[in-house]
Amino acid sequence: MNDINLRLNADKLILGALREDMPGEDVSTNAVMPEYRLGTVKLIAKQEGIIAGLDVFARVFTLLDETTSFDFKFSDGDMVHPGDLICIITGDIRVLLSGERTALNYLQRMSGIATYTHRTVEALEGSGIKLLDTRKTTPNNRIFEKYAVKIGGGNNHRTGLSDGVMLKDNHIGAAGGVGAAVRMAKAYAPFVRKIEVETETLLQVKEAVEAGADIIMLDNMSDDDMREAVKLINGRAETECSGNVTLKNIARLKSIGIDYVSSGALTHSAQILDLSMKELKPVDKEA
Amino acid sequence: MNDINLRLNADKLILGALREDMPGEDVSTNAVMPEYRLGTVKLIAKQEGIIAGLDVFARVFTLLDETTSFDFKFSDGDMVHPGDLICIITGDIRVLLSGERTALNYLQRMSGIATYTHRTVEALEGSGIKLLDTRKTTPNNRIFEKYAVKIGGGNNHRTGLSDGVMLKDNHIGAAGGVGAAVRMAKAYAPFVRKIEVETETLLQVKEAVEAGADIIMLDNMSDDDMREAVKLINGRAETECSGNVTLKNIARLKSIGIDYVSSGALTHSAQILDLSMKELKPVDKEA
Amino acid sequence: MNDINLRLNADKLILGALREDMPGEDVSTNAVMPEYRLGTVKLIAKQEGIIAGLDVFARVFTLLDETTSFDFKFSDGDMVHPGDLICIITGDIRVLLSGERTALNYLQRMSGIATYTHRTVEALEGSGIKLLDTRKTTPNNRIFEKYAVKIGGGNNHRTGLSDGVMLKDNHIGAAGGVGAAVRMAKAYAPFVRKIEVETETLLQVKEAVEAGADIIMLDNMSDDDMREAVKLINGRAETECSGNVTLKNIARLKSIGIDYVSSGALTHSAQILDLSMKELKPVDKEA
Amino acid sequence: MNDINLRLNADKLILGALREDMPGEDVSTNAVMPEYRLGTVKLIAKQEGIIAGLDVFARVFTLLDETTSFDFKFSDGDMVHPGDLICIITGDIRVLLSGERTALNYLQRMSGIATYTHRTVEALEGSGIKLLDTRKTTPNNRIFEKYAVKIGGGNNHRTGLSDGVMLKDNHIGAAGGVGAAVRMAKAYAPFVRKIEVETETLLQVKEAVEAGADIIMLDNMSDDDMREAVKLINGRAETECSGNVTLKNIARLKSIGIDYVSSGALTHSAQILDLSMKELKPVDKEA
Amino acid sequence: MNDINLRLNADKLILGALREDMPGEDVSTNAVMPEYRLGTVKLIAKQEGIIAGLDVFARVFTLLDETTSFDFKFSDGDMVHPGDLICIITGDIRVLLSGERTALNYLQRMSGIATYTHRTVEALEGSGIKLLDTRKTTPNNRIFEKYAVKIGGGNNHRTGLSDGVMLKDNHIGAAGGVGAAVRMAKAYAPFVRKIEVETETLLQVKEAVEAGADIIMLDNMSDDDMREAVKLINGRAETECSGNVTLKNIARLKSIGIDYVSSGALTHSAQILDLSMKELKPVDKEA
Amino acid sequence: MNDINLRLNADKLILGALREDMPGEDVSTNAVMPEYRLGTVKLIAKQEGIIAGLDVFARVFTLLDETTSFDFKFSDGDMVHPGDLICIITGDIRVLLSGERTALNYLQRMSGIATYTHRTVEALEGSGIKLLDTRKTTPNNRIFEKYAVKIGGGNNHRTGLSDGVMLKDNHIGAAGGVGAAVRMAKAYAPFVRKIEVETETLLQVKEAVEAGADIIMLDNMSDDDMREAVKLINGRAETECSGNVTLKNIARLKSIGIDYVSSGALTHSAQILDLSMKELKPVDKEA
Repeated sequence: MNDINLRLNADKLILGALREDMPGEDVSTNAVMPEYRLGTVKLIAKQEGIIAGLDVFARVFTLLDETTSFDFKFSDGDMVHPGDLICIITGDIRVLLSGERTALNYLQRMSGIATYTHRTVEALEGSGIKLLDTRKTTPNNRIFEKYAVKIGGGNNHRTGLSDGVMLKDNHIGAAGGVGAAVRMAKAYAPFVRKIEVETETLLQVKEAVEAGADIIMLDNMSDDDMREAVKLINGRAETECSGNVTLKNIARLKSIGIDYVSSGALTHSAQILDLSMKELKPVDKEA
Repeated sequence: MNDINLRLNADKLILGALREDMPGEDVSTNAVMPEYRLGTVKLIAKQEGIIAGLDVFARVFTLLDETTSFDFKFSDGDMVHPGDLICIITGDIRVLLSGERTALNYLQRMSGIATYTHRTVEALEGSGIKLLDTRKTTPNNRIFEKYAVKIGGGNNHRTGLSDGVMLKDNHIGAAGGVGAAVRMAKAYAPFVRKIEVETETLLQVKEAVEAGADIIMLDNMSDDDMREAVKLINGRAETECSGNVTLKNIARLKSIGIDYVSSGALTHSAQILDLSMKELKPVDKEA
Repeated sequence: MNDINLRLNADKLILGALREDMPGEDVSTNAVMPEYRLGTVKLIAKQEGIIAGLDVFARVFTLLDETTSFDFKFSDGDMVHPGDLICIITGDIRVLLSGERTALNYLQRMSGIATYTHRTVEALEGSGIKLLDTRKTTPNNRIFEKYAVKIGGGNNHRTGLSDGVMLKDNHIGAAGGVGAAVRMAKAYAPFVRKIEVETETLLQVKEAVEAGADIIMLDNMSDDDMREAVKLINGRAETECSGNVTLKNIARLKSIGIDYVSSGALTHSAQILDLSMKELKPVDKEA
Repeated sequence: MNDINLRLNADKLILGALREDMPGEDVSTNAVMPEYRLGTVKLIAKQEGIIAGLDVFARVFTLLDETTSFDFKFSDGDMVHPGDLICIITGDIRVLLSGERTALNYLQRMSGIATYTHRTVEALEGSGIKLLDTRKTTPNNRIFEKYAVKIGGGNNHRTGLSDGVMLKDNHIGAAGGVGAAVRMAKAYAPFVRKIEVETETLLQVKEAVEAGADIIMLDNMSDDDMREAVKLINGRAETECSGNVTLKNIARLKSIGIDYVSSGALTHSAQILDLSMKELKPVDKEA
Repeated sequence: MNDINLRLNADKLILGALREDMPGEDVSTNAVMPEYRLGTVKLIAKQEGIIAGLDVFARVFTLLDETTSFDFKFSDGDMVHPGDLICIITGDIRVLLSGERTALNYLQRMSGIATYTHRTVEALEGSGIKLLDTRKTTPNNRIFEKYAVKIGGGNNHRTGLSDGVMLKDNHIGAAGGVGAAVRMAKAYAPFVRKIEVETETLLQVKEAVEAGADIIMLDNMSDDDMREAVKLINGRAETECSGNVTLKNIARLKSIGIDYVSSGALTHSAQILDLSMKELKPVDKEA
Repeated sequence: MNDINLRLNADKLILGALREDMPGEDVSTNAVMPEYRLGTVKLIAKQEGIIAGLDVFARVFTLLDETTSFDFKFSDGDMVHPGDLICIITGDIRVLLSGERTALNYLQRMSGIATYTHRTVEALEGSGIKLLDTRKTTPNNRIFEKYAVKIGGGNNHRTGLSDGVMLKDNHIGAAGGVGAAVRMAKAYAPFVRKIEVETETLLQVKEAVEAGADIIMLDNMSDDDMREAVKLINGRAETECSGNVTLKNIARLKSIGIDYVSSGALTHSAQILDLSMKELKPVDKEA
């Protein structure tokens, strides 16, 4: 996550998370540690997985004290194993203590998503199919979760309702059919954005491709229908398969000939990656 | 979640989630539905579980248009089954479409947590042990996730660093021992807040109880050590068992005699509960 | 501008504008009008042009007092002439007075842009060329100005840096050429977004079309070069002409065969449309 | 614009403008420039005019990265000519690219206003008349536009409804006459603020001066009436001429004997000053 | 305080105060009152004084629930006596309980200031001297405290650094003398704002009046010097006496001939007025 | 106040206070001091008392310019006497002038509270009774005022409605009695928080202690009743005496045997401590 994104869009969320955890003071820390005291602490992996979100992890601490420093042994996208030392953090011990939980909450979740995504991408290996995320993200965490998907090897679908056109069953119903919906969308947003349309039958696929949709989503179709759809489309639009796709059931899609598979599970079902901050100890400034 | 909490503390988060999804307009909806059109849509359960967050679900829509109305067939805490009609929502179709994803993202996550909590509470049934959550929540979602834990039958540990004293290994190290840490905390925060201290050995348990800790956490102790600790404490403090407790391994704790078990898994490992909004259709105002 | 957009994204800007004008009280109004007094005032056109922004105009007043009511005689997109009564506003006279300037500042600017856009679209009539705006908008006014362009008959280019890929000379330099830039963009953002690339020579046009750009911008090219470029592209990408295009010099582009023309002047050089609020008078509630 | 004003009041607007342009990431820049890369770019004048807003221009970049540095060749208030090198900016190329449009949008608009104001002041030269701006500014841009008016040689009228009393026709109607309005305002706000009143007839001028108004606005009066009014007032109050005053028609006012002329056109009708950022290139840190 | 001021500028402060008191839920209330329950409570005076801030008091509750209603027996500016029933509030009992402290914190402080101001004004009675407040207000409470001063019969000095020119010793030193400072201020801010200058000696008074200051502050002068100063100024400027003026020592100023006296004590030394909310009880909706 | 608290929770309030005082520019300072000029100014005590809030005082200036530096001669909690030099501040003279009032408004109020608290603690000396504050603080100033109470030697009661359970008469009424209320609170919030209950009679005290309340408030009881209550409770709960306790009447409580006394007067009736910034003068950077 580059610094511009962190500052403009992530900082206010991270500060919100810190304030959520500390609407007042950190009573425990202030009770036993009344003054500034330099110290270090280690970030350790307790599970195997892909690490993602180290910049966000660091930002939690530097937002509390910009002199906090980090000696990273791994980078986003690296595989870590139990016991790996990921980072040594040096700073005011009170900052290390007060920021710990928020920093881990971000890093563990992001790394969990990257790990799950990575495994799903592996399951598609050799097929040329690109894996996509969805908008089924945790509220106020989308930029973090979509970034983690990329780190895990996936691709981002649209970031929200404003930067992509996706015509779903309800839009199609309102427009009066797949073709009408695509044409209305092309007239309304003729530029920059591709038009994607959700289809549930081969008839709709045909309508969509004829109306000039850029991307056709095959929603909850049987494998046979998808094969038929791909043939019917014949390269005139990109194809996305969607519908309860998870790590467990994705492999069967490899031979169907679709371009993309999207999976909400990447962001709503990934378990966290277990990490911990250990061995906090004071250091002399000179050391 | 009562209305005061929603307004004061949840609304800004919900609005943040809506803006995250719509930094500009909903291009797809505006393309096919240029004008106000009254409609209804059904909220349907696709999985068995405990529903939690209906007020938050509704608030997403009423923040977009306060005339949106809801006919709820279930209440927070109710068990739902696949196919159950949970609610009929009536309002401007554009509002129903634009708010759908955000509303479901909240409700599915909260219901997933309530369901997981409910099952964990069941696993403790008969033991008298109370189940607690932790601060391992998703950033900027703590009030929703802690509420879901309560709906699922669990209890809330402290909401953050400001409303409870919890002396962890690092605090104890800084203070120079369990006893010293408890005494410093009692001097610093003599009122309102209970003092909890984390212990890893029976020696620390002894020190803690003698220093007058209100709650003693038995952190990653063996079952035998916990039994010993409970005997040693002998009612002079409350006891909390902690450390990688999940639905799968919790039952073994029932006979140990502890008062509380805390589990980070409630909020960081619960899967979402599958729900969907279906059968959107326009209605005549008179109808 | 639909209500969802107003609430989620416009309201905070409108409130910012009101607070900019009233960091404290409206001294003049409060001095002469200490109490609530119902009144009406007329919104009158003083110039010929296209009206745009009536919802925003109204929102200024309803944010101050939601009981303010409006009897609109025209709608966004209508042509108004000097003397036309556009709307009768009824509400607390203090609200009418305190909100007047902010409401007019929005409406006059938006209508000015719609009017200028409308005239530019007329200049392109018969050519099939679509007119586009740019990101050369007034800071913190983009949603209002882009909306006004649409009302005037223009189309919106991307709303910002996040919802479209536009590779400019500096991006191309960084990537090491047009082709490389397009390929990097396709790898980075494979989905939803079209890839547009700026070209200044026919060689670059060739490279762009071969690399699979979706849209090719012909930047400050001669008319002859543009004709040549259109031939070379031959329908394999859409074409956008850009570079100091204003109402005065746009007509010459009609016969070149390009798909789009973009003009920064729509938003940075449009004059306001002169409007005023007149004949404020108290009314009896029963009246 | 001094640093205190920038921080307290401008920063949040500038950040708003940056977020308006980048609700998410800068896709184009991130696609071709994944890492930090130091570079320089030149700010070049493409039109003759008065430059205004260099601090705001710089602030856009330093809010993204405070290490961005600036080698200014001109200062606010200087006249620039086509081709003039105004500034060399050095920083992370991604920051230079992502901030460019927002920085130019501010600087071009502010310089356009300063230029237009400068020409209007020239048209009044020798008359001793001071030029004033109005509240007809772009929403959420008043501090920038009023600052530009000062740089162009104009003076600021009140900044909003809270820091000056200006009794307009509607206030006078509510109060029951010019004299009554002035007296009510003096009673309500006896201190710090001067009382200005709008007059349309010589009778009102007489009433105003007798009631002790500090400033009398002559609104849309004929030149003869204004001459008469000045005679009648005879130094007992300051005089302001107002009403559709633009650069084109202002010269005729020079001989009338008024103290001030206010012109909304300064802020609502000034064209932008054409500027551009050119020749971006990477540099070695050592260079 | 009129509704426009409440909404634009007071609401965010009141919400801040409510969130300061309830960063999470109201645990006590939610424990004993899980559901909506209509009730009433009485606002009772426990001390004699001037009531001020009833709109703010009410706003605290309506921001929590806009259906809360108020039956006011007194208005701002009225004298209340111990035992007086000031208002009956009807609403959700949880709202009445959760908002009570914040509402009283505002009302008691504002009424205390109004009461203290009222007594100070009485001490000046017959002298024609107008009483002014200062900027010595509680941070983030200025609009409330300045309003209370007006209700108590005082007048407001400038609301802050932006809406009045007040040249203090340090400004004078920077400018190189009283005369120079006044001239610089007149050149910098020629319009709307009066120029006030602080003087400590008769020499400075002379300089100030000759430089054309609008208001001359006599700062910590002896009574004799002030008399001399008034003579010297002779109506050419208004005069303000300042310097540790409190209710106890103000009467001696009555005969000196000054126009205004300012007193920081009005806002920084007023005691609260004792009020309480009593007799909360549930009511039936039909009642 | 440690740096984490300042940043997370105080900064936004301090910035709010600065913007309240400077919604636009500091006209007076900008008029006489157009450019950066390094200078120093002295913070001097004018009254005897306990200084509190030096970090907040400094933060006001560093939020305007982080290069402002401070040479503190005293620390929070120190007693100062008239004439004492508390601090020399060095920075841009414009920052020193523009921040002065806001910085003093905080420091004087906080020091006034610390001083009043200190005297009240002295009045309790030898009794072992701990002094508590209340929620009767100035809106949006609680963290500053509660901090000042601690500096003065007092202890903080709960910080708000969310971090402590305090069952008042109205809660008890709603629950149907003291015992019921305590039991409901224990069921609702079984963890972390102590349960405090307000009692007005010995009967209620008995009920409270039997229901297992952690703290029993003796509200407005006679001294004899309090003595009786202490005997009755007999160490089974902590005791807090409350009800119009001020510096003047507190000494009588020393022999009663209670654990805590709470006093709203600490925060709502303390006078400010008189301090001033003097002898501002420019310095050469080299000096």
